[in-house]
Amino acid sequence: MLQTPPARIGMAEHEIDTPALLIDLDAFEANLDIMAGLMRDCGVKLRAHAKTHKSPVIAHLQMARGAVGQCVQKVGEAEILAWGGVSDILVSNEVVGADKLARLAALARITRIAVCADDAKQVAALGEAAAHAGVLLRVLVEIDVGAGRCGVKPGGAAVELAQQIEAHPHLRFGGLQAYHGSAQHLRTLTERTAAITAVSDNTRRTVEQLRQVGLECDIVGGAGTGTFELEAASGVFTEIQAGSYCFMDADYAANLDATGKPVSRFGHSLFVLSTVMSAAQPGVAVLDAGHKAVAVDSGYPVVWQRSELRYVGASDEHGTLRVAEAAASPALGEKLRLVPGHCDPTVDRFDWYVGVRGGRVECLWPVAARGALR
Amino acid sequence: MLQTPPARIGMAEHEIDTPALLIDLDAFEANLDIMAGLMRDCGVKLRAHAKTHKSPVIAHLQMARGAVGQCVQKVGEAEILAWGGVSDILVSNEVVGADKLARLAALARITRIAVCADDAKQVAALGEAAAHAGVLLRVLVEIDVGAGRCGVKPGGAAVELAQQIEAHPHLRFGGLQAYHGSAQHLRTLTERTAAITAVSDNTRRTVEQLRQVGLECDIVGGAGTGTFELEAASGVFTEIQAGSYCFMDADYAANLDATGKPVSRFGHSLFVLSTVMSAAQPGVAVLDAGHKAVAVDSGYPVVWQRSELRYVGASDEHGTLRVAEAAASPALGEKLRLVPGHCDPTVDRFDWYVGVRGGRVECLWPVAARGALR
Repeated sequence: MLQTPPARIGMAEHEIDTPALLIDLDAFEANLDIMAGLMRDCGVKLRAHAKTHKSPVIAHLQMARGAVGQCVQKVGEAEILAWGGVSDILVSNEVVGADKLARLAALARITRIAVCADDAKQVAALGEAAAHAGVLLRVLVEIDVGAGRCGVKPGGAAVELAQQIEAHPHLRFGGLQAYHGSAQHLRTLTERTAAITAVSDNTRRTVEQLRQVGLECDIVGGAGTGTFELEAASGVFTEIQAGSYCFMDADYAANLDATGKPVSRFGHSLFVLSTVMSAAQPGVAVLDAGHKAVAVDSGYPVVWQRSELRYVGASDEHGTLRVAEAAASPALGEKLRLVPGHCDPTVDRFDWYVGVRGGRVECLWPVAARGALR
Repeated sequence: MLQTPPARIGMAEHEIDTPALLIDLDAFEANLDIMAGLMRDCGVKLRAHAKTHKSPVIAHLQMARGAVGQCVQKVGEAEILAWGGVSDILVSNEVVGADKLARLAALARITRIAVCADDAKQVAALGEAAAHAGVLLRVLVEIDVGAGRCGVKPGGAAVELAQQIEAHPHLRFGGLQAYHGSAQHLRTLTERTAAITAVSDNTRRTVEQLRQVGLECDIVGGAGTGTFELEAASGVFTEIQAGSYCFMDADYAANLDATGKPVSRFGHSLFVLSTVMSAAQPGVAVLDAGHKAVAVDSGYPVVWQRSELRYVGASDEHGTLRVAEAAASPALGEKLRLVPGHCDPTVDRFDWYVGVRGGRVECLWPVAARGALR
């Protein structure tokens, strides 16, 4: 069952039922504007990643500010965006299985769509699905630029796969996917620069080898919120795939700039609102948001603007706060904002965003692609 | 949006689209039967915990085998069970907030319902909600038996709260809630026995103090899959609240028995079926199930009956397998069963169970209370 919304438009923030997924609309729009400005300045395109927000509403807000399209990881996410009118979607991931390929090919009839590949068998399957649907599919070659996950090796292997794609009458070579996930979370700028220099060198070399056989890259895509300025400055990337920037999370907020201070470009705009449901233990307060409500894979959430409260333990439905010595415990029933450790999987646990401005609920947006695992 | 089911009844397991939440029905029914037998033998009641399965279908299967009712953690879960015809539900948790209390009180009209409290203010709020709805609510006092989370101290504080409950015309004292969560996962039987001996001693003492003031405990409830035999043998617990036993997970399977071997009473019946979506790296296979599909809070999933494959890394939509040296890599498109590290939050990521028997899909059951965070 779809869950009912936890709020009504117009109510005060403290009246929202919890746990609830809050967007601070002022901070959120500021993040969108800042990224749009950065992209305008550097002349590289933004294809924002919808794996973070899972919402056609947010996709359209990003595209109204200049983003050329959206990335997704799953066909199910692409469907939700396409059904919501998003006109340019890249599945920045491999798609395997006949059912999924048929759904992907069908989407080519209603939106501009592209997908990644890293295997000759997969290219053959993509070609078959496209031919069966009578469509032309754009396919990017994913190269492994250091993540050790998906992708062929940069250079010759990528060229070979690109040629196979281009040779199929129902496929067109669309460019390169070159994303280094773990580099996003390297804490110092020096580490991130070293990692992305290698990424860019390998990508540039592959682009040049492709050009030598007459293949141009329409898209050279990659990067995330942790490193996008480095890829954007490389001269080889044409599209930046940052997602988390619109919300930020505690993990990304721990990245450091050149001076060793936290990178503070984007502000926290996403919160899990939670209620103190037990205050029976001295020095402890228990929240109604455990790890079914807030992802803990990248660390516990941080209590927003309440440095005396530390989230120290998550069970399924409970979050345990430790209260600093000499500080007052929060009251039973008090509502606290949590900054998730990791925004993407936190969003995926909710059916509704509650948009808040000036202390009031301004909008309810469905997390339309919540649970779109396939 | 609710996700479409990943399978059709009658199809072969290898045809199921992935990631999918699988129940091996033979193993699942065996678990239900084993627990029913154990409970018959010891004369203690089973009130199985629906926070694990979130399904009225499974609740009814447990109750048909003798379970007296169900536990839940959230009012939203209680609603789903009540709407699905479950006749006896304990919210084994505190409920805070006027909206939630009104919903809870409304449920008392259609099912037998009880809730826990650990605070005088909360008892007052429960009384108000019950009076407003014109119902009688049964309220258990939660005592902290070692978890350091919710609950008043055993003994006098519990008696005081019980008297406050009993004094309210719209509330009735229902007994004690005495659950020690972290004790479930102590690895050795010696550690678990020590923890539950203390739990039982504190609970027994409180039951006796209540009796001295004329208050009988209709329910003395607690225990989980890790320790239920200890609580059942204590002579003080009347109800066992195990949930995970019906599915088991990799974490519970790591508990040891008296001989130091893994406790093997229940078998794994819950799996996340996933597909190898990339095999481009030597010695590595990438699955389409990352931590949006399988909970990693209690460790990575284990690849079922494929000891040469180790799940070594989860990102949002990818699971990375390391292939043992000299072993063959799984093929692109191959489907593998994963045993989740933690079953409860894994179930909560899916809209559908796919029930499999003899290699064929036998049923599709909705995870009806998926996302019922409130």
